[in-house]
Amino acid sequence: MPRYKLTLEYDGTGTTGWQRQENGPSIQQYLEEAIECLSGQKAIVYAAGRTDAGVHALGQVAHVDLPKDYPALVVKRAVNFYLKPAPVAIIASEKVGEDFHARFSAKKRSYTYRILNRPAPPILQLHRVWHVREQLDVSAMQESANFLIGHHDFTSFRAVACQAKSPLKTLDSIIIAQEGQEIHFHVSAQSFLHHMVRNLVGTLKMVGSGKWQPEEVKIALEAKNRTAGGPTAPAHGLYLTKVGY
Amino acid sequence: MPRYKLTLEYDGTGTTGWQRQENGPSIQQYLEEAIECLSGQKAIVYAAGRTDAGVHALGQVAHVDLPKDYPALVVKRAVNFYLKPAPVAIIASEKVGEDFHARFSAKKRSYTYRILNRPAPPILQLHRVWHVREQLDVSAMQESANFLIGHHDFTSFRAVACQAKSPLKTLDSIIIAQEGQEIHFHVSAQSFLHHMVRNLVGTLKMVGSGKWQPEEVKIALEAKNRTAGGPTAPAHGLYLTKVGY
Repeated sequence: MPRYKLTLEYDGTGTTGWQRQENGPSIQQYLEEAIECLSGQKAIVYAAGRTDAGVHALGQVAHVDLPKDYPALVVKRAVNFYLKPAPVAIIASEKVGEDFHARFSAKKRSYTYRILNRPAPPILQLHRVWHVREQLDVSAMQESANFLIGHHDFTSFRAVACQAKSPLKTLDSIIIAQEGQEIHFHVSAQSFLHHMVRNLVGTLKMVGSGKWQPEEVKIALEAKNRTAGGPTAPAHGLYLTKVGY
Repeated sequence: MPRYKLTLEYDGTGTTGWQRQENGPSIQQYLEEAIECLSGQKAIVYAAGRTDAGVHALGQVAHVDLPKDYPALVVKRAVNFYLKPAPVAIIASEKVGEDFHARFSAKKRSYTYRILNRPAPPILQLHRVWHVREQLDVSAMQESANFLIGHHDFTSFRAVACQAKSPLKTLDSIIIAQEGQEIHFHVSAQSFLHHMVRNLVGTLKMVGSGKWQPEEVKIALEAKNRTAGGPTAPAHGLYLTKVGY
């Protein structure tokens, strides 16, 4: 059974997220059904990150075992053909060894969170950005973000439903950049807790709007209590951009 | 009757374009109806460019006369409120003199055309880009674009239905830039013929894919015949980005 590494772009709008759910279509289901059209056999796809409903991907990575030795390019082309008109596409495919696992082999995950920071509502970026009307202070947000870099107990930024065994994670970087009317948060770590990026962004936004002082993010982190952290930013501003192996 | 200058963002998908038509909703209609909700009187809006069905705007400019002297910010906020959920928003509003005319006072119009240049179909940029699978040569396209700069008879790149009196236009600039997997064509002139930007991009793409030599664009221009020009690029990759006064 040859194994394939698939790099995926998807639009999470209107889906239940990566994972199969009872209540609507999932990215996993779209992809598995398209692969089954190619292979004629049941397919099980594993992803680097199980993104939530509404979250997008520019570089999600998944792997699948196929019953026949197809060229990687054929897998990409054929599955993209069968995927249409689902909001998912394979942007790169590669044959990999049996020891490759999209989730467990991942060494680095990078997310970008986009805020549209202007009074007027999003039009061309509808469902693609979090709309924040009040002007945010990027340098205050960067200052407070720097307290979060490194190895910490991130309980204050962890969803109550999070199933990870430990709240300890190492945050490699948070870079906050103004891009025209948008503010982009680029966040990287080997792995994240459930809702962690959205909780970090929701908290940093409190600093950006002046409701919190930068130092209050440090206090929230040290409290190791979810109620000390800020609110959860909405799913539709979040993008899984890259997974490193 | 105070006059207001309105800067607009819109998503042309599913509309008949700027101008009111029998066969579907237009940007003009959405905007006029929202303004009428504010003023209680019939509104007529004039735009700098009457964009085609499917064409987008990041900085279209329009003007309207209102029966009452509202603060410009009130016009923006109230009309944006009444516009929802139409795919149009006012991103800036300003009170201007009676001599200001969105169309006739315009000194420079800037468009950007976006091509997604990769084998995989557009997902997050669906309806936002022209999808071209074969890799395009940006420097060959820029070389041929340079033949088009300046004052010329643009008959070869003019829609047969174009109603302009003269085919003479002065093209100020065409800058072609690779942006990740996309290629952006930035085109500026005081004014354009009907379909001119899309016909120019469709022709340059023939050079980018190697089907035409760069010099053939010069020959096409000099032929002054629409049949000598290349095909029309699709509407959904085009954005009216800025109007200068």
